[in-house]
Amino acid sequence: MDSETQTRLRNAVDHLFDDQTAFLSELVAFPSTRGNEQDAQDYMAQAFEDRGLATDRWTIDVADIQGLPGFSPVVGNYENAVNVVGAHRARTARGRSLILNGHMDVVPEGPHDMWDTPPYDPRVDDGWMYGRGAGDMKAGLASNLFALDAIRACGLAPAADVFVQSVVEEECTGNGALACLQRGYTAQAALIPEPFAETLVMAQVGVMWFQVHLRGLPTHVAYAGSGSNAIEAALPLIAALHEMEARWNAEQAKPAAYAHVHHPLNLNVGKIQGGDWTSSVPAWCIFDVRMGLYPGQDMQAAREDIEATLNNAARQSAFLRNNLPEIVYNGFLAEGYALGEDTGEAAQTAISTLETAHRAITGADLDKVAITATTDARFFGLYADTPALVYGPRAEAIHGFNERVDLESMRRVTQATALFIADWCGLETL
Amino acid sequence: MDSETQTRLRNAVDHLFDDQTAFLSELVAFPSTRGNEQDAQDYMAQAFEDRGLATDRWTIDVADIQGLPGFSPVVGNYENAVNVVGAHRARTARGRSLILNGHMDVVPEGPHDMWDTPPYDPRVDDGWMYGRGAGDMKAGLASNLFALDAIRACGLAPAADVFVQSVVEEECTGNGALACLQRGYTAQAALIPEPFAETLVMAQVGVMWFQVHLRGLPTHVAYAGSGSNAIEAALPLIAALHEMEARWNAEQAKPAAYAHVHHPLNLNVGKIQGGDWTSSVPAWCIFDVRMGLYPGQDMQAAREDIEATLNNAARQSAFLRNNLPEIVYNGFLAEGYALGEDTGEAAQTAISTLETAHRAITGADLDKVAITATTDARFFGLYADTPALVYGPRAEAIHGFNERVDLESMRRVTQATALFIADWCGLETL
Repeated sequence: MDSETQTRLRNAVDHLFDDQTAFLSELVAFPSTRGNEQDAQDYMAQAFEDRGLATDRWTIDVADIQGLPGFSPVVGNYENAVNVVGAHRARTARGRSLILNGHMDVVPEGPHDMWDTPPYDPRVDDGWMYGRGAGDMKAGLASNLFALDAIRACGLAPAADVFVQSVVEEECTGNGALACLQRGYTAQAALIPEPFAETLVMAQVGVMWFQVHLRGLPTHVAYAGSGSNAIEAALPLIAALHEMEARWNAEQAKPAAYAHVHHPLNLNVGKIQGGDWTSSVPAWCIFDVRMGLYPGQDMQAAREDIEATLNNAARQSAFLRNNLPEIVYNGFLAEGYALGEDTGEAAQTAISTLETAHRAITGADLDKVAITATTDARFFGLYADTPALVYGPRAEAIHGFNERVDLESMRRVTQATALFIADWCGLETL
Repeated sequence: MDSETQTRLRNAVDHLFDDQTAFLSELVAFPSTRGNEQDAQDYMAQAFEDRGLATDRWTIDVADIQGLPGFSPVVGNYENAVNVVGAHRARTARGRSLILNGHMDVVPEGPHDMWDTPPYDPRVDDGWMYGRGAGDMKAGLASNLFALDAIRACGLAPAADVFVQSVVEEECTGNGALACLQRGYTAQAALIPEPFAETLVMAQVGVMWFQVHLRGLPTHVAYAGSGSNAIEAALPLIAALHEMEARWNAEQAKPAAYAHVHHPLNLNVGKIQGGDWTSSVPAWCIFDVRMGLYPGQDMQAAREDIEATLNNAARQSAFLRNNLPEIVYNGFLAEGYALGEDTGEAAQTAISTLETAHRAITGADLDKVAITATTDARFFGLYADTPALVYGPRAEAIHGFNERVDLESMRRVTQATALFIADWCGLETL
């Protein structure tokens, strides 16, 4: 790409940046937690149509995807699980095709009184936009779309097919991205602007979600000694899971990609509920756990270790010994994925193309990281032979209170994305 | 009372016993958990009217009772908190007046799959009636009513006012019984047939309910080490409460009435809820605790001990130190009560009258116990100078699964109650 085109693209992003910020603000205002993404997806579909993209909006059908590798057990029903894809079809199709992926679902915002300002009432302060989903990852969705807008504003278009995806279910299963694959959207590379501070993700962990269902022996609390408290029964099981976590994070267990990461695999007790009545010894308790996995770690062996850990701890209790916990997998069964281990030409070229774009915009080398979270990248990389680049803006407090994204960082990522598209796909005149 | 009258009363209970069992079955079929007692209370009001009792059915108004001693903070609203009292007004009023008290509210039944048969589909097997509330305390409500029926069947009536009470809120505050006092229902003794196996309760513990609200510092679980998990924060606080429980149950802490009771004061974590999302470090957790108190134990000092215990444990955590738990009292603030310490003539006479009735029916001495639960007896004994006798049938698994009451035990209690009424109130002809 000549430096004049580079400059024009960069300036076009700048020229459109107020619109992009306003668009991001509109997106953040949708409380698009899982099951509630439809309005936001309608808004995105309209944005695709306004730009002349061929727009495909569909409800995910579990029957279509449940037999595919990478499928995760479904949390809730899918009546409201809507994906949107906007397709740019190139006139000349001289270049390499590309998927620009992002997810519309956000995680619950938690108690509103712990936010300084309401989570779905986005505000800009000192260069940051605040709100649930601002970073994870509506800024990325905006970046994908406005990178294409900048190209169009220059009277140009990608010289290859580009599929802009706004998916759901990223935060619990990844089945939204999987449904895009199943529907036939494939390309020669994928870019996912998840908020990892303008670094390129070379390895991501896998994630498993499981619920532990415990029973108790209820009695009137007057005779508490004769009962078995299902809530308190959770305590030693949680302790045993943390021992397993320590074992999995031991130095000798780490693969090379995570050798320098302090604690790659986090175990989180994210939800708990138990008991019906304060003066009854509780008969039931359910807690929800998230556990990380290394790329390449055997999923079945991991499940067996989790189950053995829980059952061994349960056998220490006279009651639980005969009432072993029920373990329910109700979300992520996600393998790890290491772009860095993809030695194919497509991966190498995609990485070097992004390195060039990043350097052109930031003047710095592209930092490469191994992350302790998962992203939808695994579907492209593991199940579609498509290198997936995770590269997005800086954000803070994702999944927390006062989540925020650095707007200048979003600007740079949008510019780098425009350059990446121009190089990877080539350009044609409109 | 002459032995012929005794025999006639006893036979009358026998004669009506099939009806009484059917009545109990009807009562158990009502799922009268807190807030859902109205249909059962309507049924009871109709039963009172059918018997010619002056029937008073009213909705408790918190404003009427909140300034009274013994009031407990309200759980939920009182739109559906309905008491029913049936009054027998004696023609001659020669004898001593009496309150026959019972409660219609039952505790939640828990997961139905842990019951052998549905909890509100009562069944009789081998002399036991099964169902939620069968023992605690619908058999007692039936006993009160059918003891009066037996007297009427003999062409007789109590020669003093008798108030038959069917109250709500016994299982969480006692405000139902308190509202009866406030409404003016007082008498010279009260009988409450709670299911303590035909023993007389000489002492009962007090009970406090409190909720512990914990905050966390949420983050994406990828950075779990930088957050603070509100669910896991509960674990050391629960451990600290159990240390306090051990201290309160130490031998030197026990009053005389509980000297021979192994573990009088039970602490129960009865409910817990926390977190919104499996992959977010949870920002909040609430757990509900029931703790017992000795009769005479200072309520304010107990609260201070509980709060100091929780806060001291919280200060061990870097995050909780600056985010101390919020402690909410949302139910029982019930003092203990010891009938055995009431040296007044009314109490002594009431006890000996019950001893005589019990011996006449069972041929055995009346066992006397100190119980590790509370009952509504405290309102009569502590706040109305009215000795309250807790004496009811044998039941098992109250607050548990497959709760059941011994029907022959209910028969004996009904017979003893009829004799007690006859002696305490005297009799007049209809």
